Amino acid sequence: MLFNQITIIGVGLIGGSVARGLKKYNACKTIVGYSRNEDELKKAVKLNVIDRYESDIANAIAGSDLILLATPVGVFEAIFAELKDLVTDQVIITDVGSSKKSVVIAAEKAFGYLPSGLVPGHPIAGTEKSGVEAAFDSLFENRCTILTPCQSTSKDAVQKVKAMWEVIGAEVVEMTPEHHDHVLAATSHLPHVLAFSLVDTLAHMHEHSEIFRFAAGGFRDFTRIASSDPLMWRDICVQNKDAILEVLQIYEKQLKVLEAAIRDADGEKIKEIFENANRARNQHVIQ
Amino acid sequence: MLFNQITIIGVGLIGGSVARGLKKYNACKTIVGYSRNEDELKKAVKLNVIDRYESDIANAIAGSDLILLATPVGVFEAIFAELKDLVTDQVIITDVGSSKKSVVIAAEKAFGYLPSGLVPGHPIAGTEKSGVEAAFDSLFENRCTILTPCQSTSKDAVQKVKAMWEVIGAEVVEMTPEHHDHVLAATSHLPHVLAFSLVDTLAHMHEHSEIFRFAAGGFRDFTRIASSDPLMWRDICVQNKDAILEVLQIYEKQLKVLEAAIRDADGEKIKEIFENANRARNQHVIQ
Repeated sequence: MLFNQITIIGVGLIGGSVARGLKKYNACKTIVGYSRNEDELKKAVKLNVIDRYESDIANAIAGSDLILLATPVGVFEAIFAELKDLVTDQVIITDVGSSKKSVVIAAEKAFGYLPSGLVPGHPIAGTEKSGVEAAFDSLFENRCTILTPCQSTSKDAVQKVKAMWEVIGAEVVEMTPEHHDHVLAATSHLPHVLAFSLVDTLAHMHEHSEIFRFAAGGFRDFTRIASSDPLMWRDICVQNKDAILEVLQIYEKQLKVLEAAIRDADGEKIKEIFENANRARNQHVIQ
Repeated sequence: MLFNQITIIGVGLIGGSVARGLKKYNACKTIVGYSRNEDELKKAVKLNVIDRYESDIANAIAGSDLILLATPVGVFEAIFAELKDLVTDQVIITDVGSSKKSVVIAAEKAFGYLPSGLVPGHPIAGTEKSGVEAAFDSLFENRCTILTPCQSTSKDAVQKVKAMWEVIGAEVVEMTPEHHDHVLAATSHLPHVLAFSLVDTLAHMHEHSEIFRFAAGGFRDFTRIASSDPLMWRDICVQNKDAILEVLQIYEKQLKVLEAAIRDADGEKIKEIFENANRARNQHVIQ
């Protein structure tokens, strides 16, 4: 058994799916849930995702080998502050937040230093759904989880967290928080920003009901991520704003190039851009 | 039997799917294919999508009640010019082009007037795939087809085209070409422009292999339309450029509002935009 007890703070789609995976592979004896949302915790117990929940954070983490933060990243600093006087350096603290530099900064602020048990992490998996009902045990199978350990992080803690992800099917990759934030801004955060903004734009048009009526499958796929949790994505935008703004500006510049080509009816230029995109997607993205 | 013989010019995903649908419902005795791509036509015969093909357009349309244009819209004017001296006003000419004002203009240019048999049309259906191998008979089931008849179009021709779409499962809606182009620019053309541009932008980044490696399901869905046929979409951008540029500029303006909110870490504003988008999508778009 990999762990005797772990505590999951925030038992939604991601936290719940980790719990389900660990249960499936019998990798943890007891999983304790903690959240500000007691309904979510009750549901999680009822669905057999967690073994029990606690309403007090000290009780929730007592006896746990590992604490997994799976709330929106905006509340990490407050949680770290609560954990400060409750944990020793032996306890592993990890998370599933979509931005990583902000997690390191929040931990340093709350603890006053970087605990050796802190292993920031991010599974590159998810769906547009939210909540524990949407959790499933194979969410991380054949997906990557990125870990961004700090200089202060103990090698043993990294190994334990790595083992946790591997047992539920993920491939683990290590990189710096900065590099993570730059890559994810491009492949995840920017697409979410663009999709939310597109649907918001169309929803403001006075004939929006009709517009949506004539939306086909391409639109449905393109905007699926705009069904994601607004609060979670608000937090990500705030926490990773520098990297997002950088890639957003590059994108806006390229979009202006395409816009100019359309204005000039420059078929050759439009074709060049579309063919490059088509080739890149077909080459790199699994269908 | 709805038709004795129809000719499909351009037997790819859409033209092929119309043919398959008509065959399934036994709505047409003979389907003749015509295209500049003989390989495509040979494949279409082999796959039993069409009954035969002709290499000469006059032979291809001889004896047909209806001619369906299903090539990229950029070649419509050249096809209309070839049809000019071959068809009478009794022959129905319809199409599946994604822009409609440009079709009316191209027909007027080529014919010197608008034939009473001309019924511009656009089925709001498709996949990111191209080619006759991707065609299937249920593509239009429970989807809308928009018809944009002109003042000169005969009511009888509209009824026949309507019947053709209804027999293969589509709901037919009529509107003006201008209104069609405005609505589709918003729900289809703009998303394609944004997706092509995003993948093109990322493909230009020096670490693009790594960036694509960490792309998850959200990115895959968001960029699926960037796998669409570049030439077809180049033509659409040129043919419907005014409506696309209009909605693109509205979008860029709204994106700037979101960008400013992210720069200011204005969580309330970001939340407002994301929640509006989330609500609109969940309300209007079939999952």
